[in-house]
Amino acid sequence: MRITVLGCGRWGSFLSWYANKQGHAVKLWGRDTSFNYQKLLQTRTNDYLLLPQNIQLTNSLEEAIASAELIFIAISAQELRGFAKQLNSLDLTNKTFVLCMKGLEMNTGERLTRVFKEEIQQPVHVAIWVGPGHVQDFVQDIPNCMVIDSEDNDVMKRIVDGLGSETIRFYYGEDVLGNEIGAAAKNVIGIAAGILDGLGYTSLKGALMARGTKEIARLVKAMGGNELTVYGLGHLGDYEATVFSKHSHNRRFGEAFVRQEPFEKLAEGAATVKALLQLSAKYEVELPICQAVNDIVWETQDAQKQINKLFMRPVKFENL
Amino acid sequence: MRITVLGCGRWGSFLSWYANKQGHAVKLWGRDTSFNYQKLLQTRTNDYLLLPQNIQLTNSLEEAIASAELIFIAISAQELRGFAKQLNSLDLTNKTFVLCMKGLEMNTGERLTRVFKEEIQQPVHVAIWVGPGHVQDFVQDIPNCMVIDSEDNDVMKRIVDGLGSETIRFYYGEDVLGNEIGAAAKNVIGIAAGILDGLGYTSLKGALMARGTKEIARLVKAMGGNELTVYGLGHLGDYEATVFSKHSHNRRFGEAFVRQEPFEKLAEGAATVKALLQLSAKYEVELPICQAVNDIVWETQDAQKQINKLFMRPVKFENL
Repeated sequence: MRITVLGCGRWGSFLSWYANKQGHAVKLWGRDTSFNYQKLLQTRTNDYLLLPQNIQLTNSLEEAIASAELIFIAISAQELRGFAKQLNSLDLTNKTFVLCMKGLEMNTGERLTRVFKEEIQQPVHVAIWVGPGHVQDFVQDIPNCMVIDSEDNDVMKRIVDGLGSETIRFYYGEDVLGNEIGAAAKNVIGIAAGILDGLGYTSLKGALMARGTKEIARLVKAMGGNELTVYGLGHLGDYEATVFSKHSHNRRFGEAFVRQEPFEKLAEGAATVKALLQLSAKYEVELPICQAVNDIVWETQDAQKQINKLFMRPVKFENL
Repeated sequence: MRITVLGCGRWGSFLSWYANKQGHAVKLWGRDTSFNYQKLLQTRTNDYLLLPQNIQLTNSLEEAIASAELIFIAISAQELRGFAKQLNSLDLTNKTFVLCMKGLEMNTGERLTRVFKEEIQQPVHVAIWVGPGHVQDFVQDIPNCMVIDSEDNDVMKRIVDGLGSETIRFYYGEDVLGNEIGAAAKNVIGIAAGILDGLGYTSLKGALMARGTKEIARLVKAMGGNELTVYGLGHLGDYEATVFSKHSHNRRFGEAFVRQEPFEKLAEGAATVKALLQLSAKYEVELPICQAVNDIVWETQDAQKQINKLFMRPVKFENL
């Protein structure tokens, strides 16, 4: 297949490397002003991998899109709306897009496939790629399981047939809404995990997993999705990478935050938690863990007090 | 309340220490021939805690039981049937027992409450205590959430009212079957996690969590329980302690096993996996992860091959 990857950060550069390895003709697009793009252009390498010569780097969106049969998007979630507006000025008729980011629009709570479809006023196919997997592992052939989800089964099949391998075993998703909410929300649970680590409450991460999945499952169900999706690869399956890994950006952010240590930039989960609270209000679903993360990160509430409050809620039945 | 704890290993000695701290009158029973019992008798201490003087140590089952309003049992799961036979020779009328072990009878697949009721031919109340929590944390007042489950709501309430604290926050369980199967099965997932760690596949533990919970949930559902119970504190909530902690006995067993390093004794999950395969056959539920653990631990199959086999199953929909 002719595959284009839009975005050349860690995940975008990996996707191009991986698609090339599966035998596809790959173009990798980045903005001319992007540090990542310039570095790849000059050195064909970054912190994670070496880009083979037959991957074509380009800063022209038009060229990147024109011949592509499959287009992966891997940019910052909060930039998707603006980027989609830009894409919409090109002819995208019947193109297939795969959104590879995990997030929700901060100010609206909107899912990324919805944001994308709102801005792309043309007939296109859309899928998402979620689930666990570290670039650092994949480039060493350490395998993992991931999920492709789409409302269009033929699109899913085409992506899985073209990209599945002994390194990435794909499952077909069955609930785009649940997978999008779940994939985004795991970053918030990651921040919560970091907060627990920072307070010396690492052993509470078990309870965090059980209670965190439950509140996100409640939300997905209220929104019309399948609550069981949350317990699949896209949310729970990503907890190793997010809740436990020392590499997790969101977990490290939470830990540094409560320890009042410097941290280079805001984690994606900090935007996502605001989106989730929009959804909490709209669908009238209580999200106590998300609320606590929000109050600690955005309202400068005391972390220890918020965690105690979570624990001091009245005794209750587990499935509530 | 007058509380008796039967069994003076790590968990039993902690239960007596904790019940005493909540203001109850506590007796702790152990066999006269038990190393743990003799050590507590002579030093009032073990590797985890110092036993206050007002906890009465006894090796007389009759004395331990006679005045007790609430009796905790914390012995090896495989010894429960024999122990219950022995208990049944005493007058137990209307006594309340709380089973605090996590296991299934190896040769029958039977749940521990069933084993207990089969042997106790008297009218008694039975509850179980499951969920995460390290003795090492609790003695330092690091809190956690746990579950009391029973078919009798009054019994649950009595236990939670008497034992809940700022250190242990209890939830009421709603599915004894699901909680017993889940609490036992998490030890098998712990062995699987150790196998992954031993093979250098730590990042697959995310997929293990998603796929492991799913197969146990399928089993619980087929047995007549609620599949969501598996995602509660009793199974998933115990994964931090079992799948990730360096202290987890089952995880360390799995890791040492594939590395062919010596390991002092068989982990409880090694017995439980045999029980789960009995249930798999009886209820016609596929348990691929449990099967792989069994084949590696009991059938000396190659771990790498078994893990690859798990990954090479055909692409499929996630909820299957």
